Amino acid sequence: MRIALDAMGGDYAPATTVKGAIDALSENNDVSVVLVGNEASIQAEIRKSNYSGSQITIKHASQVVGMDESPLTAIRRKKDSSVSVAIDLVKRGEADAIVSAGNSGVVMATALFVLGKLKGVERPAIAAVMPSLRDHFVLIDAGANVDCKPVHLHQFAVMGKAYARNIFNIENPKIGLLGIGEEDAKGNELTKESFKLLKSSDMNFIGNIEGKDVFEGEADVVVCDGFVGNIALKIAEGLAETMAKMLKREIMDRSTGKVGAFFLKDALKSFKKKTDYSEYGGAPLLGLSSPCIIGHGRSTSKAIKNAILVAGTFHSKGILNIISKEINDGITRRDKVAVEE
Amino acid sequence: MRIALDAMGGDYAPATTVKGAIDALSENNDVSVVLVGNEASIQAEIRKSNYSGSQITIKHASQVVGMDESPLTAIRRKKDSSVSVAIDLVKRGEADAIVSAGNSGVVMATALFVLGKLKGVERPAIAAVMPSLRDHFVLIDAGANVDCKPVHLHQFAVMGKAYARNIFNIENPKIGLLGIGEEDAKGNELTKESFKLLKSSDMNFIGNIEGKDVFEGEADVVVCDGFVGNIALKIAEGLAETMAKMLKREIMDRSTGKVGAFFLKDALKSFKKKTDYSEYGGAPLLGLSSPCIIGHGRSTSKAIKNAILVAGTFHSKGILNIISKEINDGITRRDKVAVEE
Repeated sequence: MRIALDAMGGDYAPATTVKGAIDALSENNDVSVVLVGNEASIQAEIRKSNYSGSQITIKHASQVVGMDESPLTAIRRKKDSSVSVAIDLVKRGEADAIVSAGNSGVVMATALFVLGKLKGVERPAIAAVMPSLRDHFVLIDAGANVDCKPVHLHQFAVMGKAYARNIFNIENPKIGLLGIGEEDAKGNELTKESFKLLKSSDMNFIGNIEGKDVFEGEADVVVCDGFVGNIALKIAEGLAETMAKMLKREIMDRSTGKVGAFFLKDALKSFKKKTDYSEYGGAPLLGLSSPCIIGHGRSTSKAIKNAILVAGTFHSKGILNIISKEINDGITRRDKVAVEE
Repeated sequence: MRIALDAMGGDYAPATTVKGAIDALSENNDVSVVLVGNEASIQAEIRKSNYSGSQITIKHASQVVGMDESPLTAIRRKKDSSVSVAIDLVKRGEADAIVSAGNSGVVMATALFVLGKLKGVERPAIAAVMPSLRDHFVLIDAGANVDCKPVHLHQFAVMGKAYARNIFNIENPKIGLLGIGEEDAKGNELTKESFKLLKSSDMNFIGNIEGKDVFEGEADVVVCDGFVGNIALKIAEGLAETMAKMLKREIMDRSTGKVGAFFLKDALKSFKKKTDYSEYGGAPLLGLSSPCIIGHGRSTSKAIKNAILVAGTFHSKGILNIISKEINDGITRRDKVAVEE
């Protein structure tokens, strides 16, 4: 399968993207990668490696989208950006999936605009993986949709379930609704209505789950609107970094500083590895007609490699077909119920 | 000044509440405390201490509100609960402020119902203190109002500012709006409209602030609706606990486990102290006609002591009068603008 990689996307691109692509090829023979971006820069990076195979091709794109550009401006004025050209390749059937660690707003908007949604899906959503004491869980929507309706949250649950089952091999993922109390009736207008929809679905819905409990690993999929999800994600990211800094400062402040720092550094590194987003390679924007994996701006080559491999799994397992079927079966079931009533 | 303390509120009450009250008295001579709850249990706790002063009185209440009871049930069926009787004391002018670490939903609803709002305040809000790399910041609303309008968020900012200025002595507190991007136009419907209101106010508004940046201490007051605020608060609480557990596990997994654990334990303890909610004593429900401080269910005696002292400061500094004045000046200004337009 062919993955279109936005070779210019990410803070350390194209060094990280080219290396990530080469590393992905060595782990999965079925994958080929189209590196999209400035041809000269990409070739320079390839030359630095010892890669000489034929699974990498380059597609030149003359423009690069900045991290601060607005989606509207980028779509209008940068038709030859690496993001845009990579997505066009998928649209024309010359690639099966797109991976980008560039400006996520622009990637989302362009992918939605060019590739369109899966039949039945109202709002594509970002599925982010977060660590828990047990293992990890999927947070959906992590930032694609700021104002949502209950039917959207229901669809996020269906898509999150398909992701958890097919990427993490969880047979019957437990679905929790992110809220402010475990009681059924607690929440805001959106979550109270969404609760009813999820309760009446045939999913393994475990009810409301509070922010303090998500890290215990009680749910495999945590559902919320994209505004709340993005804040939850960023609060967690910010706090983890701050806590690490504060702990280091605490230890260095002591007379035994250097010895303590040695132990802590080691433990923090291992902790970081376990909770590192780069292990999961990025967050898919679920619900588009083709797989689209969005990487963190700070993606390392390892994150890019994993994002490419995840994109490959999405394609080979036909996860989008599964999502489409479940969404449309759900819609048919709802219509039936409506008719019978 | 006289503080009515719900002596039965909190997981470890009345041991923690009685001790907290006695400790508060030793730190502030101007304070007297009415311990409200089961007289026999309270007296038993007082006997355990060596307290023999006259600044503590007991007001018997025959009922206790459970942590899982709904506000409606509690208000209807537990008219003689320690929460209800304590709030009644304030209502009748026999106490100047109420402190409770009991069921926070019930405390909020009862206080709102019995004491009523400050003139001009549309929605009382919870102001929680969270740690940052610089020091700490005030998160408002941390859970009182799940569905909000822009005018509410504007008022939360006014109240949070008064709190930060008068309790933390910050001359001109920086106000940030919790959102999903720093750009002015980013956010959901609520925050986009709230942004305009805050921008046109005379507060020190620094714009949108992302979850990952709040812990850097860029804003002194972080404003959001109560649903988002409560999730942010609980995500932070849950992650901090999980991270501490994971780090301990990491260190114990090593051959050097015990030595490493020694260093970490020490650093974690000091870190915990710096970030401990009990230092701030609880979160005020701002915007009521009298000071109301809500403690964490897990409040220690130190948290109770600090909550009593904060309640005293609220009263002695006339913080509610300041809030009332600023809110009503703001309303007058808005009306003027409307007339001139």
